[in-house]
Amino acid sequence: MLNHVINLDRIFHALADPTRRAMIERLGRAPASVSELANPMSVSLAAIVQHVQILEASGLVRTEKVGRVRTCRLDAGTLMQAERWLEARRGEWNARLDRLGEYLEETTHPPTPTPKKGQK
Amino acid sequence: MLNHVINLDRIFHALADPTRRAMIERLGRAPASVSELANPMSVSLAAIVQHVQILEASGLVRTEKVGRVRTCRLDAGTLMQAERWLEARRGEWNARLDRLGEYLEETTHPPTPTPKKGQK
Repeated sequence: MLNHVINLDRIFHALADPTRRAMIERLGRAPASVSELANPMSVSLAAIVQHVQILEASGLVRTEKVGRVRTCRLDAGTLMQAERWLEARRGEWNARLDRLGEYLEETTHPPTPTPKKGQK
Repeated sequence: MLNHVINLDRIFHALADPTRRAMIERLGRAPASVSELANPMSVSLAAIVQHVQILEASGLVRTEKVGRVRTCRLDAGTLMQAERWLEARRGEWNARLDRLGEYLEETTHPPTPTPKKGQK
């Protein structure tokens, strides 16, 4: 449970930066080397390496070094963790709106009371 | 577009803290005053006020002060912005896996070549 909390902290922190989101968008299309990730960006390779480390610590990105090339790929399962948390909040919110709607329906259109036995 | 980027920065930053996520979980069930948000938390009221300010700056929470009571409510539309961004990444990733699956299917079970006209 605690690990889950720490992981959501790291995932959302990793997502809070526009360069890291751009890197995730790039990796969503296909795996890429660190250099390929750095090429279209207007920041230094050193900065990209730091961003990769933050993405890797969050679990959003997995990397593998073969020879001199480190290849990065998206971990869709980690992306799902964040998505599920948001979906759960929205689910609760919608359920609340449904209950509110039912309440308003009942108070503005109360059901016709059935006459009691013996009533004229 | 720039506003959208800044907003995602703020939304994900707001979500990166366990106390703020707990506050959002609470507000997902129903609106609450700042004091009601602070009650179950093990942090000071002053800290909760700061968290409310960060949540409000992100657009995830709207507040309204009536008399001495500030009521906080979730903005489900802002929550959706974050969810849509994540969904879009997952969509791209799944599309990539589908293409990869098709490619593997074609290379392991290549279609029988149709004989050219004139071939015996």
